[in-house]
Amino acid sequence: MKVSVFRKEHFNAAHRIFNPAWTDERNREVFGKCSNPYYHGHNYDLVVEVKGEINPDTGYVMDMSVLSRLIQQKILDYFDHRNLNEEVEEFKVRIPTAENIAVLIWERLRPEIDLKLELYITLYETERNFVRYPA
Amino acid sequence: MKVSVFRKEHFNAAHRIFNPAWTDERNREVFGKCSNPYYHGHNYDLVVEVKGEINPDTGYVMDMSVLSRLIQQKILDYFDHRNLNEEVEEFKVRIPTAENIAVLIWERLRPEIDLKLELYITLYETERNFVRYPA
Amino acid sequence: MKVSVFRKEHFNAAHRIFNPAWTDERNREVFGKCSNPYYHGHNYDLVVEVKGEINPDTGYVMDMSVLSRLIQQKILDYFDHRNLNEEVEEFKVRIPTAENIAVLIWERLRPEIDLKLELYITLYETERNFVRYPA
Amino acid sequence: MKVSVFRKEHFNAAHRIFNPAWTDERNREVFGKCSNPYYHGHNYDLVVEVKGEINPDTGYVMDMSVLSRLIQQKILDYFDHRNLNEEVEEFKVRIPTAENIAVLIWERLRPEIDLKLELYITLYETERNFVRYPA
Amino acid sequence: MKVSVFRKEHFNAAHRIFNPAWTDERNREVFGKCSNPYYHGHNYDLVVEVKGEINPDTGYVMDMSVLSRLIQQKILDYFDHRNLNEEVEEFKVRIPTAENIAVLIWERLRPEIDLKLELYITLYETERNFVRYPA
Amino acid sequence: MKVSVFRKEHFNAAHRIFNPAWTDERNREVFGKCSNPYYHGHNYDLVVEVKGEINPDTGYVMDMSVLSRLIQQKILDYFDHRNLNEEVEEFKVRIPTAENIAVLIWERLRPEIDLKLELYITLYETERNFVRYPA
Repeated sequence: MKVSVFRKEHFNAAHRIFNPAWTDERNREVFGKCSNPYYHGHNYDLVVEVKGEINPDTGYVMDMSVLSRLIQQKILDYFDHRNLNEEVEEFKVRIPTAENIAVLIWERLRPEIDLKLELYITLYETERNFVRYPA
Repeated sequence: MKVSVFRKEHFNAAHRIFNPAWTDERNREVFGKCSNPYYHGHNYDLVVEVKGEINPDTGYVMDMSVLSRLIQQKILDYFDHRNLNEEVEEFKVRIPTAENIAVLIWERLRPEIDLKLELYITLYETERNFVRYPA
Repeated sequence: MKVSVFRKEHFNAAHRIFNPAWTDERNREVFGKCSNPYYHGHNYDLVVEVKGEINPDTGYVMDMSVLSRLIQQKILDYFDHRNLNEEVEEFKVRIPTAENIAVLIWERLRPEIDLKLELYITLYETERNFVRYPA
Repeated sequence: MKVSVFRKEHFNAAHRIFNPAWTDERNREVFGKCSNPYYHGHNYDLVVEVKGEINPDTGYVMDMSVLSRLIQQKILDYFDHRNLNEEVEEFKVRIPTAENIAVLIWERLRPEIDLKLELYITLYETERNFVRYPA
Repeated sequence: MKVSVFRKEHFNAAHRIFNPAWTDERNREVFGKCSNPYYHGHNYDLVVEVKGEINPDTGYVMDMSVLSRLIQQKILDYFDHRNLNEEVEEFKVRIPTAENIAVLIWERLRPEIDLKLELYITLYETERNFVRYPA
Repeated sequence: MKVSVFRKEHFNAAHRIFNPAWTDERNREVFGKCSNPYYHGHNYDLVVEVKGEINPDTGYVMDMSVLSRLIQQKILDYFDHRNLNEEVEEFKVRIPTAENIAVLIWERLRPEIDLKLELYITLYETERNFVRYPA
């Protein structure tokens, strides 16, 4: 049977929920105050899950300090203290909802982790709103 | 691959764990102080999970403000600051354990949510006792 | 300089906020759904603070296992899984608000603790509503 | 002896730490990534403490639903989902650090609360950085 | 559809991560400060999940007080305030990583719980590092 | 009026509560399982509070990144993943209770922080046992 290991990290960022294909009125109607053109922001809590077999030599599925360093390099250095709409390339064409941020985190980490290991992302936008990918 | 979105809400209620088909002695024996005839109570934390595809126009699986409003109308208005045994119709014939409350929450929300979306309920009776349905 | 030591415990109880000197209408007007005659309930988190000098022989201000046992005997055995209005003598004449519960906890613990030590009570009725006595 | 009552609320906002009297280099040097001109953001958790005597008729120091409504009107409606630098008048001339936000929250609530009651603000910028005013 | 019930408990222990088949240098290289020969320690939070059908007579999947007692006897009495490497038999031949501790907890609880019920272990070594078995 | 700023950090360590001036029996009698000669351990959460005036040029009482670096150098590098009894000089002559660890943290940080600023330490040994110095 497999074991999952989880590592929790966090970052802070600004964003707005805005579909450039729509009028401002339509954006306000659908996204409400989340579409504020001056942006708002969040403390994002990120939990990365890696699932696989225990390596009998180390007792580890994956070394948490290696995973933590990977998250630092591929995710925190890319998102932390940034404006997601203005400074993250992918969000010029996708809307930076929690759902889409989780998918992008998965896409950026997947190539860095052994393919024998499964990868899952949980992203807390607030304590009360969070998402998981893949579900 | 699908994404799950989660919304956390809470309510306070009184209840007792009591099977009316049993004697008081049997109830005390099985349910202990939880069967106290004068009731006791909890702060229930509720996490509603909705799983599905991301809508590319909004970046949402489901608008969290719509989900939050649904939970308010169908669950919080029905349970909050209530005595579950005395004031909630269904618990005249079911025992209001965390398990049965979670099932009832699922039954009350399921008809309100698009059938393409899966629905899961996690209910915390205390920080240390919680349930999930379907598991 | 003194040190404070803190011990966190919890209990569950039912209550209603109701002033028997008032009409039912006045109670509903002032206390809203908190005055529901069928009761509602909470998971109360209790933090007891004891302030004093460190005993050089033990390195303790007060042995936390002694404090925990005291809280068990004088507070948890008295309040846990109870209906505060119906089953706690003092709340026949005081209203069981968080404020008054905190004062009663202080009154019940004060005689049990060395007078050289100061005593403070923090009581969480919910994660978002809490009180401290003395302030 | 007095009792303190505490109410926890939250809001999300974008900001940058920037002193307009300084050069951009000096701002980067002192404030680091917090001075990012595109802004970043936080989930702010706010705890408002009101200290005073218990009203014997209600058992309350202050009705928490009244306090919650006040915080909604004077604080959340003013800060939530806003860009503090661009959309909050006072932060055109003060720097929106956690310290200064807490002071402004105090200034906006103080006139609304009975002068017999003391008022204290705790503001969490993240789970690991928070401030209290007055200290 | 099945329901899962969860019970959270905790224990404190000392350990070091060390493979006796390796040299000290190799251990330091792979495990870093976690291999400190003088040990370090953790507050372990343990969540035990039991999945099955609701018993219609009790409204329970499993009585949480029975589960809590089982965890006390088979897990807390075995691990709490212990040095895992020195005092837990199984860790003379396995490395006491979070992964292996979770597996051992599962092995010790599985024979005690009705085979119609599924069993899952989540173990928090810190708030930021945790594991689940089976995944 | 002054403002307090708070920074939360954490470390893991092993310890035992043991008074070398006493017999083993006396230690077991007073300290119970906390005196286990093989040690046990904790995840310590540390909150450092610094109180003073806001600097009008920065909006800061003290730069949290400076405070965080200080805590890293003087506290985490000294305690993290250590055996407090065996590897921390001061605990050869003091008992490493939470009270005494908090006092030692204060003593190590006090010389590093501007004397116009007050310093307070809160140390969580577990979520349920914590101390504050000075109180």
